[in-house]
Amino acid sequence: MIVVMEPEVTEEQISHMVERIRQFGLKPNVIQGAERTVIAAVGKERSDLMDSLARGPGVAAVMPILAPYKLASRELRQESTQVQTQSFRAGCGVCGVIAGPCSVETEEQLMTIARAVKSMGATALRGGAFKPRTSPYSFQGLKEAGLKLLAEARQETGLAIVTEIISTEDVELVAKYADVLQIGARNMQNYRLLEAVGKVEQPVLLKRGPSATMDEFLLAAEYILNEGNAQVMLCERGIRTFEAHTRFTLPLASVPYLHRATHLPVIIDPSHGTGHTYMVPDMAVASVAAGADGLIMEVHPDPENAMSDGYQSLNLEEFSDTMLRCRKIADALGKQFG
Amino acid sequence: MIVVMEPEVTEEQISHMVERIRQFGLKPNVIQGAERTVIAAVGKERSDLMDSLARGPGVAAVMPILAPYKLASRELRQESTQVQTQSFRAGCGVCGVIAGPCSVETEEQLMTIARAVKSMGATALRGGAFKPRTSPYSFQGLKEAGLKLLAEARQETGLAIVTEIISTEDVELVAKYADVLQIGARNMQNYRLLEAVGKVEQPVLLKRGPSATMDEFLLAAEYILNEGNAQVMLCERGIRTFEAHTRFTLPLASVPYLHRATHLPVIIDPSHGTGHTYMVPDMAVASVAAGADGLIMEVHPDPENAMSDGYQSLNLEEFSDTMLRCRKIADALGKQFG
Amino acid sequence: MIVVMEPEVTEEQISHMVERIRQFGLKPNVIQGAERTVIAAVGKERSDLMDSLARGPGVAAVMPILAPYKLASRELRQESTQVQTQSFRAGCGVCGVIAGPCSVETEEQLMTIARAVKSMGATALRGGAFKPRTSPYSFQGLKEAGLKLLAEARQETGLAIVTEIISTEDVELVAKYADVLQIGARNMQNYRLLEAVGKVEQPVLLKRGPSATMDEFLLAAEYILNEGNAQVMLCERGIRTFEAHTRFTLPLASVPYLHRATHLPVIIDPSHGTGHTYMVPDMAVASVAAGADGLIMEVHPDPENAMSDGYQSLNLEEFSDTMLRCRKIADALGKQFG
Amino acid sequence: MIVVMEPEVTEEQISHMVERIRQFGLKPNVIQGAERTVIAAVGKERSDLMDSLARGPGVAAVMPILAPYKLASRELRQESTQVQTQSFRAGCGVCGVIAGPCSVETEEQLMTIARAVKSMGATALRGGAFKPRTSPYSFQGLKEAGLKLLAEARQETGLAIVTEIISTEDVELVAKYADVLQIGARNMQNYRLLEAVGKVEQPVLLKRGPSATMDEFLLAAEYILNEGNAQVMLCERGIRTFEAHTRFTLPLASVPYLHRATHLPVIIDPSHGTGHTYMVPDMAVASVAAGADGLIMEVHPDPENAMSDGYQSLNLEEFSDTMLRCRKIADALGKQFG
Repeated sequence: MIVVMEPEVTEEQISHMVERIRQFGLKPNVIQGAERTVIAAVGKERSDLMDSLARGPGVAAVMPILAPYKLASRELRQESTQVQTQSFRAGCGVCGVIAGPCSVETEEQLMTIARAVKSMGATALRGGAFKPRTSPYSFQGLKEAGLKLLAEARQETGLAIVTEIISTEDVELVAKYADVLQIGARNMQNYRLLEAVGKVEQPVLLKRGPSATMDEFLLAAEYILNEGNAQVMLCERGIRTFEAHTRFTLPLASVPYLHRATHLPVIIDPSHGTGHTYMVPDMAVASVAAGADGLIMEVHPDPENAMSDGYQSLNLEEFSDTMLRCRKIADALGKQFG
Repeated sequence: MIVVMEPEVTEEQISHMVERIRQFGLKPNVIQGAERTVIAAVGKERSDLMDSLARGPGVAAVMPILAPYKLASRELRQESTQVQTQSFRAGCGVCGVIAGPCSVETEEQLMTIARAVKSMGATALRGGAFKPRTSPYSFQGLKEAGLKLLAEARQETGLAIVTEIISTEDVELVAKYADVLQIGARNMQNYRLLEAVGKVEQPVLLKRGPSATMDEFLLAAEYILNEGNAQVMLCERGIRTFEAHTRFTLPLASVPYLHRATHLPVIIDPSHGTGHTYMVPDMAVASVAAGADGLIMEVHPDPENAMSDGYQSLNLEEFSDTMLRCRKIADALGKQFG
Repeated sequence: MIVVMEPEVTEEQISHMVERIRQFGLKPNVIQGAERTVIAAVGKERSDLMDSLARGPGVAAVMPILAPYKLASRELRQESTQVQTQSFRAGCGVCGVIAGPCSVETEEQLMTIARAVKSMGATALRGGAFKPRTSPYSFQGLKEAGLKLLAEARQETGLAIVTEIISTEDVELVAKYADVLQIGARNMQNYRLLEAVGKVEQPVLLKRGPSATMDEFLLAAEYILNEGNAQVMLCERGIRTFEAHTRFTLPLASVPYLHRATHLPVIIDPSHGTGHTYMVPDMAVASVAAGADGLIMEVHPDPENAMSDGYQSLNLEEFSDTMLRCRKIADALGKQFG
Repeated sequence: MIVVMEPEVTEEQISHMVERIRQFGLKPNVIQGAERTVIAAVGKERSDLMDSLARGPGVAAVMPILAPYKLASRELRQESTQVQTQSFRAGCGVCGVIAGPCSVETEEQLMTIARAVKSMGATALRGGAFKPRTSPYSFQGLKEAGLKLLAEARQETGLAIVTEIISTEDVELVAKYADVLQIGARNMQNYRLLEAVGKVEQPVLLKRGPSATMDEFLLAAEYILNEGNAQVMLCERGIRTFEAHTRFTLPLASVPYLHRATHLPVIIDPSHGTGHTYMVPDMAVASVAAGADGLIMEVHPDPENAMSDGYQSLNLEEFSDTMLRCRKIADALGKQFG
């Protein structure tokens, strides 16, 4: 890391910092400029060392050189990771498609959707059984009954099941039914939960928190990888900005950024990433064009009567049209879609 | 709520929406303007109804009239809530002061700080035993050993103990030692945890998530209140914005806003709210002037060697000076400080 | 508009507001709910009326129903506008391509680029002669000499010339040479300048300010339209958010949003919208897929030696590859590219 | 500056960058770590050099060491600047108070306000004659007639006149009447205008753009200082964030930040910084406590009938109360108020 000293720094302060850097097992290089002195500290960077050096006397700033995550980084592992479970694949030229309702509501609702999205090319079925809701007065999900319906839908359609897990207490239960465990945006920094899903066999779909930086996002993945689960998918679902005409702002530049920074597949969620049904198709198509390794979309046969997220769910016809447009893009770019 | 129809709306679509509104037990009022038709739906608003109506045919937007939280609202309860435990009080003209290290490190460290902040006027001691850390490679806290040291410090100084809880599994353990349970910013929407602390006897210090809207913040409080725990303090600790010269942007207008919207006390955290030691005193003083019901500040006798957050911790002298300035402000405004 | 009254509103306050609404020539509809009274004011909305009503006694909030812009709105004009000048077209199924250097530097530089981008399918040439620079110490452009070089490049290649104008004093001069006048993001709310370019014959490329809401953006366009110039293109070039891995966050959902709100063509700038060369191709391709009516990209034969914006400029080979990928997308979607 | 190379950098790329750095007249220091090579470039930093180096082969990032502004920096000039004109002073322990209507409306309105705010302790009178309005359909100001009324008010009260200037064409005219020229937030990067007010004798009140970084803000000041006008005040008026319960988010940590970075006085605008009358008093008081060198507030005898900004204007009684509270704070902290 680089330690930048204040303009009026003293010799003593520089010596002190040189000594500190040595104590931490790093090699200090003092570079004296006309206006500022900087000390390059060569060796293994750690964020706690940075924080400590930042409070040293005469220090103006400490700047990191290396990424704070290791296992997730492309520097450590150059070839891209492909996540695979049941018929679902994501990464290495394959764009997987996860579709389904926000919440599992009834057997009929779920089976209708599962059959429809399967026939339209989806390779995984999403559906919430444990729902984290902003208001305590909103529908909280069918819980285990919902998981059972999801398993039934897999039984019939062969679609991989993607469902959210919101507490460490439920890991065993959800892992019994699901093929992919989803960590929602609200729990991106629920470290106990990350550690828990780091110990299961199933792949994990990790959603970006709406105000998480890329380093925070990748460090959350690192928690999972660090427990031994190498099957992590990163899901961009939009960030919080001043824009009010969308629920969240969907920054598709996350795709090229993450493809450079990490070997993990990148999934885009245009439903939460916009919050308005009419924007979802264009953003789905744009995601495929930008190089996404997968899409996750909310689909409901009757969005007006959905128990949650109807305002951003595609109906079956809209989903079918979106799939056709996406496939054209994938074909044009020589990628496998679905 | 107000349902705004599209400009090219048909009679059928209006009738459909009128019917839907009636089905939900609300009373529709159709108002026909020259350019737009709007339908006012009078009755008990619920966010799931809003979402459902938003997906209706010919609907352009649905706008809420009422706040989505109830128990937290000042409409429901007009007099302000004062939270009190041990020597600590917050609200109703009293500005409580919570001070202490980011992490509990050693007995000596903790006791030094506890005695010092007590003598300088703090009324509660903060200290992390379970630490949620952005990186899996950072110090994660002393856990129960840390809780025991905190209890020891209370024993000697009489200061109320404020400590963070990061998982439902630890509620019983932490509640055995602590006087105030802190929910950190990362867990503001960890609903299971909110429900769990809603069932304990101790007051809760709920930190705002860095991208939480005020409605989301107050709905998180609602989860706790809804379980029966009426002693909730709201802590503003800064939001994520484009500003890079501070770690977070501290929006002090949250104080007058929350004082109008809710009866719960408002605590300001100028340490996390700025991320730089040199800014903390000015922001602490400004918080008292703005009408905060409490402050929470990180204090360490040797910040350069702190195991976490040294860059934003005050040393004992800096804390003492800050307390003097804050007290002058409180005196000038006729408020009790500490 | 909808006037929401405070919970403890009095009859007098309601009468007062009803009277005010009538004074403004609007028709008041009082709707009494169990918890709140709202007054719908039917008629011609104006933002100054809203502001005035908002300060009325007992008023909690005033919510608009109609968009504040008129001439720019799709409500007023349903068919999409196509902007056309020289060989350049944007809108109505045609995606125009504007390419060229950030700054005009030398005759050789400009002619090399002009010939190259023309041969690769661009339909307009960008190049800055008057440069608004963040620092007073940076290169400020060749001014009229630069305009002359641009005119020369048009002469040879037939490409339409797009160049920025930063002051009303230069309107006459720039209009003598340019085919499209660009208003930069920093000047999006420089109203005198908007009025001035509203009086010229040439189309205007209006860039979104990095913190402008969509209403502010469209009201800026309204200033131009209101002076009589109907040829306005809206350029999304990224917004300021907390993300630091890109210079700006490029929100492609602006495309479907603007296509619904306005009849004006929407151009995307993936160069400023990301700030990093390596992200530009993916974002260009995604923009075409999202339905953009045009692209504007920075291209330089030797970006390392560019006098400005080298870090986000494509070299000729990169531009050529990007154009090929974009064209495949346009073909797949049945749109004309270039 | 520090040039960080990619992990897989070659010897040739390093040599190339060393050579480039030398060509720019800087001294390269190559530091080889286990995982990365960095090159410290010692000498006069310039943002255009940084941009150029960033595009070099094998370069991952370029990090600046020095601030990009010079004349505004406290490194160049250690003692604080006090701005003084007529009875108004700001800086060096004096907190000036600028108060008045958003727009000059009538002689009676202006004289009423001027006399009142003078009697309550204000030291300058604000009032807009040229109004930059978001909508072309809003009131645009009385123009020269408004300036004349302002001059009249100064004549009677002795208050310094602060008024906005929105175009270079008006500089001469406005400078004839005003004591302080205000550059509004929308024009913070209107460089021609900055240069123009850099050439007049009067002090300048420069408002921060709602998405301007501190470097951009100080570089805007640098444009003015660079033309010879040393009397620049920096005005924090709130930034654009995701928060919707305030019009802008007022980050008071700008006060300690700017006091460290620059010698120029810092003025706070709690009216625009919140956008709601009821928040203004608390934020005014907090600003004084945070160490602001001045306040600027909107005051109107009848806000409900103000021609602009009534929703954030204090009436005379509210202003009087606010002044009393602010003065108590200033007295407690030993600062001069007004």
